[in-house]
Amino acid sequence: MEKCNAYRCHGGTVEIWEHQSDVLKCPMRFSIFLPAQAMTKKVPLITFLSGLTCTHENFTTKANAYKKAAALGIAILAPDTSPRGDDIPNNEAYDLGQGAGFYINATQEPWIKNFQMEDYIMCELRDLVNNNFAVEADNQSIMGHSMGGHGALTLFFKYPHLFKTVSAFSPIVAPAQVPWGEKAFTAYIGANTQEWLNHDACALVGKNPQKDASILIDQGTSDNFLDEQLKPHLFEAACETAGQPVSVRMQEGYDHSYYFIQSFIDDHLDHHAEALLK
Amino acid sequence: MEKCNAYRCHGGTVEIWEHQSDVLKCPMRFSIFLPAQAMTKKVPLITFLSGLTCTHENFTTKANAYKKAAALGIAILAPDTSPRGDDIPNNEAYDLGQGAGFYINATQEPWIKNFQMEDYIMCELRDLVNNNFAVEADNQSIMGHSMGGHGALTLFFKYPHLFKTVSAFSPIVAPAQVPWGEKAFTAYIGANTQEWLNHDACALVGKNPQKDASILIDQGTSDNFLDEQLKPHLFEAACETAGQPVSVRMQEGYDHSYYFIQSFIDDHLDHHAEALLK
Repeated sequence: MEKCNAYRCHGGTVEIWEHQSDVLKCPMRFSIFLPAQAMTKKVPLITFLSGLTCTHENFTTKANAYKKAAALGIAILAPDTSPRGDDIPNNEAYDLGQGAGFYINATQEPWIKNFQMEDYIMCELRDLVNNNFAVEADNQSIMGHSMGGHGALTLFFKYPHLFKTVSAFSPIVAPAQVPWGEKAFTAYIGANTQEWLNHDACALVGKNPQKDASILIDQGTSDNFLDEQLKPHLFEAACETAGQPVSVRMQEGYDHSYYFIQSFIDDHLDHHAEALLK
Repeated sequence: MEKCNAYRCHGGTVEIWEHQSDVLKCPMRFSIFLPAQAMTKKVPLITFLSGLTCTHENFTTKANAYKKAAALGIAILAPDTSPRGDDIPNNEAYDLGQGAGFYINATQEPWIKNFQMEDYIMCELRDLVNNNFAVEADNQSIMGHSMGGHGALTLFFKYPHLFKTVSAFSPIVAPAQVPWGEKAFTAYIGANTQEWLNHDACALVGKNPQKDASILIDQGTSDNFLDEQLKPHLFEAACETAGQPVSVRMQEGYDHSYYFIQSFIDDHLDHHAEALLK
């Protein structure tokens, strides 16, 4: 593991690291913000999963999360969204292949060899971070945006013992029912739509609700992807049926960009702090 | 003038505009953040001048200024750093030509036709913004970073009646004495070093101190350009000689990046608010 860059930021440090991933079989980069408190003790960690086309950089440079995280004393990990490289399978579309890992483990050719993003995030990167940084392995949570909102919600329901809470910005809540998810799931895990439900937040909350945790979701009303790809009301209804506490906030006039994320990131950090700092 | 993009942000709007500049003889872009208050009245305006290699985008996406600006009810204008285009003179170096306008009016070939950044910022863009947005023409201030810190300080001393205050991050305070300034001034305005002093903050404060205004400067101690190009102690000494109030804060471990700027931008906005909101 090699440190590519380190920047002093709000009294803590933003670090960019590169490591050879055994799971994805390529070099991978991530950023981690360590607040000043991490100099003297282990601190809670939030993992932020990014959306389609993003690398670790989008959140790191544009989300404006670090002032609040520094004040709260919480670290934030921002991984990449897929394996990358000239010898890694890809697709000319922005929503398949590199930049579009969907946080699941592929079972289909040509993706199966490298596109194991669930194992990467939950095993390899998790161990790497817990073993090498001053973070509390048993006091973590997860959030994400769009495809990363899908990642955050589904990983929260798949690994509830590993996350104290979850939140999302404009998440894909029902990938089994929308074009982005149908395309990615068909390619990565095949045409069996029953299998898709194992990676669909609306389905997972019905099977495995986490009634002690409250979920925060923000969604812009002017988001171009709202009606066709995101459909937060489906998740709201699934949560109500399952008895899962959730707050879905429709934010008037906001779009799908990081200007939207930065406008509400502090609310999300407060939501996570409530679970991580008690 | 054409609106390229508009993003809802912290209850206000970030807008990206393009216009044909008569002064620079090319299309130019800028961003402006308008807080919610600008929907119903004119608000104060801060102009932020960026550093070498930057466009309007760097500050706009990375400075994390808009939460505080929204709370204060202050608009922020972020212009580009030079004329741009295939038919605009350029140089292969990052510190001359496009991306390196230095906020002065060139008198030398081949720059003289397009590189008129002082007139662009102070006349053309100023009029355009005052006439088309809900900003108070008589209640404005200026700040900048690096080359833009030089721009902010020198324009403040050249046009003291137009700016209530000024601040800077890691500014080039003595361009007539450092390599960046020597190279740019020689190219743009010729070898007469006496003329250089008309565009040098250390010289200008001696001629025209603004004793009713206090200047805020933040400088990282781990900035790679500190010793050779920036030399804030020269400005501190010039201010002391001139009786100019100034606070130069050396920030331990911070570098020249936007991670440094974002860490202290709220202090700068508070500094400007003190002058603009009384």
